[in-house]
Amino acid sequence: MVTIRKGRDVLTLVNVFSVRPENQQKLVDMLVEATDKTMKKLPGFLSASIHRSLDGTRVVNYAQWRSKTDFDAMRQNPAAQPHMAAVAAIATFDPILCEVSESVSRDE
Amino acid sequence: MVTIRKGRDVLTLVNVFSVRPENQQKLVDMLVEATDKTMKKLPGFLSASIHRSLDGTRVVNYAQWRSKTDFDAMRQNPAAQPHMAAVAAIATFDPILCEVSESVSRDE
Repeated sequence: MVTIRKGRDVLTLVNVFSVRPENQQKLVDMLVEATDKTMKKLPGFLSASIHRSLDGTRVVNYAQWRSKTDFDAMRQNPAAQPHMAAVAAIATFDPILCEVSESVSRDE
Repeated sequence: MVTIRKGRDVLTLVNVFSVRPENQQKLVDMLVEATDKTMKKLPGFLSASIHRSLDGTRVVNYAQWRSKTDFDAMRQNPAAQPHMAAVAAIATFDPILCEVSESVSRDE
């Protein structure tokens, strides 16, 4: 189970992909495969949650890494390159590196 | 604690705000206040997790609502309007309504 908490020492990557609606499911499948086959085996990977937008034009990956160092190492890892190239062929993306400032749930 | 799971019947809003770095912390504070004072009391609110980007130019709100109907009602609620107007004065935003397609964590 993926959790979001303030004050936890993780790097959060919010990657917003723009895609043609006819390619949205294909992009979701590619990101799930990249996660299962490659990312989850790399040092520092914590989680990836892949979302499809209701309007068909976006996919959002909410991912957590132990540190920016681990994330940067993944980007340089040859095992990750083919996945990134395949995704770039059908989508543009806007990766946002961030940290949790505050997290509020209804029960608090 | 906020959790992300596949197959849970929630609406996820990923709202990406663009902001000048000198206003980033102010925007975070405004979103936290809007959540605490207003959003969390509205029907269907489940959670809001507010993130600041490391480069200072973005804020991401990862929010969960029980349904799109509840989310749409919030947008029409007079109590929410002043918060949205204040935010719009210092930031642009790109709200993405989505659902979880897959969620993978390291332990799986």
